Amino acid sequence: MRSDHFTSRLLQVSMAAVLLYACKPNNAGNAVSGNAAEKTYVAPGKYDEFYNFVSGGFSGQLSVYGLPSGRLLRVIPVFSVDPEKGYGYSEESKPMLNTSHGFVPWDDLHHTELSQTNGEIDGRWIFVNGNNTPRVARVDLKTFRTAEIIELPNSAGNHSSPFITENTEYVVAGTRFSVPVGDNTDVPISSYKENFKGTISFISVDKNTGGLSLAFQLETPGVNFDLSHAGKGPSHGWFFFSCYNSEQANTLLEVNASQRDKDFILAVNWKKAEEYLKAGKGTKKAVRYAHNTYDETSHTSKSEILNEVISLDPKVLKDICYLIPCPKSPHGCDVDPSGEYIVGSGKLAALIPVFSFTKLQQAIANKTFEGEYDGIPVVKYESALYGEVEKPGLGPLHTEFDGKGNAYTSFFVSSEIVKWNIKDLKVLDRAPTYYSIGHLCIPGGDTKKPNAKYVIAYNKITKDRYLPTGPELAQSAQLFDISGDKMQLILDFPTIGEPHYAQAVSADLVAKNSTKFFKLDENTNPYVTKGESNAKVVREGNKVHVYATCIRSHFAPDNIEGVKLGDEVYFHITNLEQDWDIPHGFAVKGANNAELLIMPGETQTLKWVPEKTGVVPFYCTDFCSALHQEMSGYIRVSPAGSNIPLTFSLGKTNTPETTNSK
Amino acid sequence: MRSDHFTSRLLQVSMAAVLLYACKPNNAGNAVSGNAAEKTYVAPGKYDEFYNFVSGGFSGQLSVYGLPSGRLLRVIPVFSVDPEKGYGYSEESKPMLNTSHGFVPWDDLHHTELSQTNGEIDGRWIFVNGNNTPRVARVDLKTFRTAEIIELPNSAGNHSSPFITENTEYVVAGTRFSVPVGDNTDVPISSYKENFKGTISFISVDKNTGGLSLAFQLETPGVNFDLSHAGKGPSHGWFFFSCYNSEQANTLLEVNASQRDKDFILAVNWKKAEEYLKAGKGTKKAVRYAHNTYDETSHTSKSEILNEVISLDPKVLKDICYLIPCPKSPHGCDVDPSGEYIVGSGKLAALIPVFSFTKLQQAIANKTFEGEYDGIPVVKYESALYGEVEKPGLGPLHTEFDGKGNAYTSFFVSSEIVKWNIKDLKVLDRAPTYYSIGHLCIPGGDTKKPNAKYVIAYNKITKDRYLPTGPELAQSAQLFDISGDKMQLILDFPTIGEPHYAQAVSADLVAKNSTKFFKLDENTNPYVTKGESNAKVVREGNKVHVYATCIRSHFAPDNIEGVKLGDEVYFHITNLEQDWDIPHGFAVKGANNAELLIMPGETQTLKWVPEKTGVVPFYCTDFCSALHQEMSGYIRVSPAGSNIPLTFSLGKTNTPETTNSK
Repeated sequence: MRSDHFTSRLLQVSMAAVLLYACKPNNAGNAVSGNAAEKTYVAPGKYDEFYNFVSGGFSGQLSVYGLPSGRLLRVIPVFSVDPEKGYGYSEESKPMLNTSHGFVPWDDLHHTELSQTNGEIDGRWIFVNGNNTPRVARVDLKTFRTAEIIELPNSAGNHSSPFITENTEYVVAGTRFSVPVGDNTDVPISSYKENFKGTISFISVDKNTGGLSLAFQLETPGVNFDLSHAGKGPSHGWFFFSCYNSEQANTLLEVNASQRDKDFILAVNWKKAEEYLKAGKGTKKAVRYAHNTYDETSHTSKSEILNEVISLDPKVLKDICYLIPCPKSPHGCDVDPSGEYIVGSGKLAALIPVFSFTKLQQAIANKTFEGEYDGIPVVKYESALYGEVEKPGLGPLHTEFDGKGNAYTSFFVSSEIVKWNIKDLKVLDRAPTYYSIGHLCIPGGDTKKPNAKYVIAYNKITKDRYLPTGPELAQSAQLFDISGDKMQLILDFPTIGEPHYAQAVSADLVAKNSTKFFKLDENTNPYVTKGESNAKVVREGNKVHVYATCIRSHFAPDNIEGVKLGDEVYFHITNLEQDWDIPHGFAVKGANNAELLIMPGETQTLKWVPEKTGVVPFYCTDFCSALHQEMSGYIRVSPAGSNIPLTFSLGKTNTPETTNSK
Repeated sequence: MRSDHFTSRLLQVSMAAVLLYACKPNNAGNAVSGNAAEKTYVAPGKYDEFYNFVSGGFSGQLSVYGLPSGRLLRVIPVFSVDPEKGYGYSEESKPMLNTSHGFVPWDDLHHTELSQTNGEIDGRWIFVNGNNTPRVARVDLKTFRTAEIIELPNSAGNHSSPFITENTEYVVAGTRFSVPVGDNTDVPISSYKENFKGTISFISVDKNTGGLSLAFQLETPGVNFDLSHAGKGPSHGWFFFSCYNSEQANTLLEVNASQRDKDFILAVNWKKAEEYLKAGKGTKKAVRYAHNTYDETSHTSKSEILNEVISLDPKVLKDICYLIPCPKSPHGCDVDPSGEYIVGSGKLAALIPVFSFTKLQQAIANKTFEGEYDGIPVVKYESALYGEVEKPGLGPLHTEFDGKGNAYTSFFVSSEIVKWNIKDLKVLDRAPTYYSIGHLCIPGGDTKKPNAKYVIAYNKITKDRYLPTGPELAQSAQLFDISGDKMQLILDFPTIGEPHYAQAVSADLVAKNSTKFFKLDENTNPYVTKGESNAKVVREGNKVHVYATCIRSHFAPDNIEGVKLGDEVYFHITNLEQDWDIPHGFAVKGANNAELLIMPGETQTLKWVPEKTGVVPFYCTDFCSALHQEMSGYIRVSPAGSNIPLTFSLGKTNTPETTNSK
């Protein structure tokens, strides 16, 4: 095994931030001016000004905060099961988490991208990425529910995703880990350079429905793609991806992928790629990936396994892809509101290069190349460079824009946000963050029209910022007022999971479209029960289907007999309420399953396989009325082969065996 | 099936609150005085004054908020799986969710009870109940982790739990749903009156370790036990349980369990029960229940199935149990700080009865009984009554105390908190809640020493209190300043799941004991790897054990070959860090499993069953350093029967097949 001196230098660098603050006094970072309380206070019953959609990182979910209060309004289950909501447990939701690997109960959600029209947030959908088992999801902002999840074949890790074009034509996904793809994948790890390849996926988005489909994949050199952003305005039609590990190391990357002075930003001319696609220059590849969709009227989801993708090879189709050298291990890859400037953030660099789209186009036209990397032309660094921000800080990660000609860059190692001017590249302001900021967010900060009232820091290290909660601490966000020349820290607020990228949007753009309940008469669930008189219990072999309703404060039926050991019981519960915020819950004692949380007008199904004889209670798990505690029932489980007939009833106090027999 | 007129009257009552506020103007309930912002603002880096432990209800978890900020500091997984933390997914944590029904991934957590010494919160543990599959859990306040879960046999639903005695001698659990118990449980539901019984469990708590064991169960009539509280001071030695459905209805309880003018509070003389237990008056009953314990040094848990409980029959042992009539369907059952007054809250009643412990003792001594209910003496209502609070509001649920002679009662239907004087029973103040309050909390409000700075309302209906988030809304809590004569609403804050009971404790009592990391040299996990030089990969049949370490910023080993289809891979990852807030995560692409989130000094194990050949990446899921993105590795999966030897390495760039072979 290796000795520890290998990483000593890098440990010093990466631990700097930690050590720097490990012994800080408890009152550090509290420099808030007197009006911060008013600036962040949202009085009871008043609304926040912004929705802040924050990636949950290793929670796999998407959380929604109000700004400026920092209040957690909702956690939307996306890639991880949520026993609270029955997400991944109800028969209706299980298909959403299907993949080519089978059912996957978790993922690592890193980035958010609100849908855009003409480069501005349109408030319709938000896209998020699954980083571990490569997927992209679409969340509908009318219902705040996950509407669709598409898996990415030929991909391992999905980090530079789900960034979009200015009219949401495409959502992209670049592989984070290159792997052997195709027919023979059982190769030595040490054969990385020969056998490992990357891909970049372009997922098209239906203008009306938001429906996702995998339009094409670009074959790329075997590197690690990290982040990306689309061009806009003049650079619309291009996409930019940062990549690291151009060393093509397969082990100890902290050392071996940090050797080269520069890695790359990959510039992709996707309009050109579209032309080649239309011209039939693509190659069909056999793959397996899941495409899962949720139907809002039937409240059901389905999972399809698809078998083909069209692949384009930029080594052959020469004018799709160009590499721009970028100082070491670039992370963030951000395009300013004008679309002219592309900011690369080398996480081990001490400067920030700003590239010019105009100069890049000239360099390409003039073939000002320094050579090729694995068949892709590499333009000369200086030929695409607008300029460098000098000594901005240590460890630049991400940049957002205020629409007033300024950029805000996060620095992990020196733990700060630095504001600088895009034209003259001069540093204008810096604010410390507690501690070690990762992403940052300005409302609309990666669009053509930022709303520069706040910048929010999403920090990686929390330590002593809040009351201690044992070894595990919530990660911390910090809200800064940037309406003036200088950043003003006004609030710390804890977050769910680990926040990576986040976006914020003016509340009035989203709130007005919010669904309050589902219309019962539009419910097309195959097991819907529209009214108590239609409630029934039906046996199909060893499957017992309970068609039940709930309304304040009872289930119909609430007495069921004739179930036997060996049966599978499916409780199909329809919530008859047609009023806002009157869900009902449903749970059965001892079920190896979660609960159902059923919204008004919705039908949800819980599978229960009884494993003992006896009388088992079920009840409403969501306090719904003064008589909620009474909202319960019993189901009797008899031995296999028992002759107890299948019966059900509500309100019948005589022996149920003789009532409502079917 | 039944016709809808059955419940019309009750629907009117229970929907009153809803209808009352359905069309309220958007600015209702915003009457906050000017200094509310300052009162609730906790500046960045400053600490909250109180920990607020809030039950998660149908989330199955326990959430921890800071007060007065209302910031969510942490969600502690207890009864539900948590993919984010690997809780219920890691090999070490799976046993915590085992039950006599097998693995149960969810429950409904209703009530919190902080451990007490001499009737005051001692900050050591917090107990919580699982309402669906009857269980009680103990959370350790040094680590903020679930340390123990015990299942309750002969029980169905566990609502009147986990309330404790003033020196934490016992945690109690009364069955919510009576069911047939014993040998023949396959009986008609309509035979409730003959066959259905209740039980009350007394779980003893080890003074030093907090260890739980089921001391004894009381057999009770077949009713629904709802809530409870122990006596204190003069009434120490007694326990009080509210019960409803004394009608013993088995269907449509909203109607059939609301017939009687009075149900009961059950007074239990548990000291007397202890005497009978010592005297061998108990009967051993054969049962099956799980007892799950977490070991903090090995970071592992184990589940035992136990087979016996000692049962006491109050019908025979006459002087253990007495019933006190209580106006209809009592819910809350609360004892004031002096221990003299027992407050019953009939959720369909328009008054609040206050019982006197002294009068109850006299009534028992003088046998002032009105008869028996199913063999249990029923004392005359007036003989135990201190007095009634008249016209306090509609739908009283719960009462907390301020230690200054005042009680605060929540009213669901009239949606308000009412403050009244315990001695003269006069109403002193009332404050509306938005909307339909359930539980409420004053720090220490159910102990001998309340800290009456705040009362917090935990509301059941949210509707328009926050920006809309589709059909599903966070439930809302409201913070009132009660340092003056009148309640002052100062903050609304959203909550996780559904908050039922919650408790708050002064931060200084808990914060000082908080564990910051686990000591590596004390780690006794059987698969611990203490240092990279000990890392190895070992095959045992088709099981491959990876003994790996992680430290900023690599895993050792990070290249593994020789795994074959049909193998089960166990990644045993030890976090070598010994610094606060430096966890590492671990995930493998495509695993039908969650991630590991490994605290410093801890070992956790992820099981992975590869289902395809190829080279599969794994990586750290928790951003840990400037080189976190580089913290990854590869594992190669070959076909079954392949002859690729089992090898592992770190930093070796030559062919791994020839290195470190075992």
